Amino acid sequence: MQFEIIHQSKRSRARVGKITTPHGVIHTPNFVAVGTNGTLKALDNQTVNSIGLELMFCNTYHLLLQPGTKVIKDAGGLHNFIQRDMPIITDSGGFQVFSLAYGSVASELKSQGTKSNKNSVVKISEEGVLFQSYINGSKVLLTPESSIQAQKDLGADIIIPFDELPPYHIDKKALERSLDRTHRWEKRSLDTHIKNPQGQAIYSVIHGGIHDDLRAKSCKYLTNLPFDGYAIGGSMGKNKQEMHTMLANLLPQIPPEKPNHLLGIADLDSLKANIPLGIDTFDSSYPTRAARHGTLFTKRGDIKIRSGKYSSIHKPIEEKCRCATCQLYTLSYLNHLFKAKEMTALVLASIHNLHFMVNHMKETRNEILMNNI
Amino acid sequence: MQFEIIHQSKRSRARVGKITTPHGVIHTPNFVAVGTNGTLKALDNQTVNSIGLELMFCNTYHLLLQPGTKVIKDAGGLHNFIQRDMPIITDSGGFQVFSLAYGSVASELKSQGTKSNKNSVVKISEEGVLFQSYINGSKVLLTPESSIQAQKDLGADIIIPFDELPPYHIDKKALERSLDRTHRWEKRSLDTHIKNPQGQAIYSVIHGGIHDDLRAKSCKYLTNLPFDGYAIGGSMGKNKQEMHTMLANLLPQIPPEKPNHLLGIADLDSLKANIPLGIDTFDSSYPTRAARHGTLFTKRGDIKIRSGKYSSIHKPIEEKCRCATCQLYTLSYLNHLFKAKEMTALVLASIHNLHFMVNHMKETRNEILMNNI
Repeated sequence: MQFEIIHQSKRSRARVGKITTPHGVIHTPNFVAVGTNGTLKALDNQTVNSIGLELMFCNTYHLLLQPGTKVIKDAGGLHNFIQRDMPIITDSGGFQVFSLAYGSVASELKSQGTKSNKNSVVKISEEGVLFQSYINGSKVLLTPESSIQAQKDLGADIIIPFDELPPYHIDKKALERSLDRTHRWEKRSLDTHIKNPQGQAIYSVIHGGIHDDLRAKSCKYLTNLPFDGYAIGGSMGKNKQEMHTMLANLLPQIPPEKPNHLLGIADLDSLKANIPLGIDTFDSSYPTRAARHGTLFTKRGDIKIRSGKYSSIHKPIEEKCRCATCQLYTLSYLNHLFKAKEMTALVLASIHNLHFMVNHMKETRNEILMNNI
Repeated sequence: MQFEIIHQSKRSRARVGKITTPHGVIHTPNFVAVGTNGTLKALDNQTVNSIGLELMFCNTYHLLLQPGTKVIKDAGGLHNFIQRDMPIITDSGGFQVFSLAYGSVASELKSQGTKSNKNSVVKISEEGVLFQSYINGSKVLLTPESSIQAQKDLGADIIIPFDELPPYHIDKKALERSLDRTHRWEKRSLDTHIKNPQGQAIYSVIHGGIHDDLRAKSCKYLTNLPFDGYAIGGSMGKNKQEMHTMLANLLPQIPPEKPNHLLGIADLDSLKANIPLGIDTFDSSYPTRAARHGTLFTKRGDIKIRSGKYSSIHKPIEEKCRCATCQLYTLSYLNHLFKAKEMTALVLASIHNLHFMVNHMKETRNEILMNNI
């Protein structure tokens, strides 16, 4: 993997860059869509390729349990299996395993969750995490080594070391112990990767929750290891302001010559707030999930397509939008399809929102090139 | 509408024909896919156009209630509204209205249903049917005149007169009374249509259940009226043999110089059995519904894609199939997507089965041209 900074904004830490991977180029900053099971929900990968999504996020945890990494390896790797000829990033499985331990990690990250014991995690130890498959109840041991091996079988362009995801409401001492173990796990992940790089890049995951000192410690430790880039993970705080403050303190400590990635956050407000901090890539399932719930992105703000006010507007979602949906279909038709509970509605809405994000990032890069961001 | 018989098989009553409509040609015999709400489930109309489906069936009942025919008329008609530039046929709404009265008409037709009073039909009279909208509870009067007016607003290439659909378990006297009323309703529908043809064709619906004498009576009455073609509706009997026997007796009585259509039946067995009788078009939601349930059509028979035996077969559904799904994706990937409950699975399976049907009918026409059918 190569990373080149094309332009550093004169107005902020925002930069325009270019990550070159074995499956092509990712222009940064960019949005990374989530295709958990090797597909974006409601879209096939040919459609996704044609929209021009440059990086797709797949979840090792899900693919490990179904169909299993052996099937995917035998298919010639994830790109072949899912028919995507553009870059893919996989995570370590840690996020999903710990979400079983703590209820919804997403809720935890927003400090809404409480630790749940109704989970499938059997044992967490220095070695790794033993859990039960939600598919067939079999026990699976996920360790730094097995996570990396799984990601070798998948063969994504960018992989992520195994980390622990502590809950938001953990006390600082416990968080620090977790951080230390995460660092040991990330080092073991890196060591496993280095034995057989396979042309893949590996990003570390900087942890430390909302504690600036722990983030600084994590950043210092991880940036001294030969990772190819830096992801920012763990709890981002209970609101967007807390996240922004944490990121504003952290980003200047991350070496600028390597790409970085913000895990799990890519709503439009967060993009606007945090691109000026110099973040390169952002992943989120939000744009496609919003689409399936009838929230369509436009330059004039989100619209709720189910609203009766669109029932007889015979115009596209956005007049100037060049997505396949706006080229053909009207607000009125989309309103009808949503009201009639037609699956086609979810397909067409997902195409629009994904195209919107790809286009939004392209425009954002142009704004940075002109030093407007 | 023009109908031309290109070839009459020397081996059977099967014929190859060509129906020319304001939105293009329908080669016959052909399969007609059902897009109840103005879309095939899980597919958008651009995809359907590209697969080459020559005739699409939309349901007036559903479109009348949601979004309403005014919205569609204002959009410039159904073709514009749903972005289909190939022929469309609409039904009268009768089938759905009476399915409310008798439980599932589909079950009734198979003689599995029992008359249900838990329905929304308020009153059936000589004038028409008063029923309650399942969407907002408002009362709607569907008459021969209002059904035709609705179909004028929709603007399909082929429309169907309003008929009564009696249940399978009706006694013959009652069926005959129903048949007489259906004939009066069809005549009123035709009279309404003739005042304002709008370039649309209108097919009559031949009724009479499984009684050959009533079918003959219906055929005689309706073929003496200036309809543009003949649909065969009503109860088809309790199994495929009963249907075939009824059709074998009926078809020779239908004037061959106009196109005919079998309503609601297009499984592969029924196509094989009844194309030699000279039926021109067949509609059914079965191929796309089967796809969504994981039943994929192939020349070697149906396959159940969820079966574990496909989990690591890295080949397309059919090696020689030219559909978008088979061009890219493997049985293994499709098996995975179905198991992971991904909506994309339903999209890709629907593309394959629809393409299979279009191609199957093309091959069937070639077989007729060679007098092999």
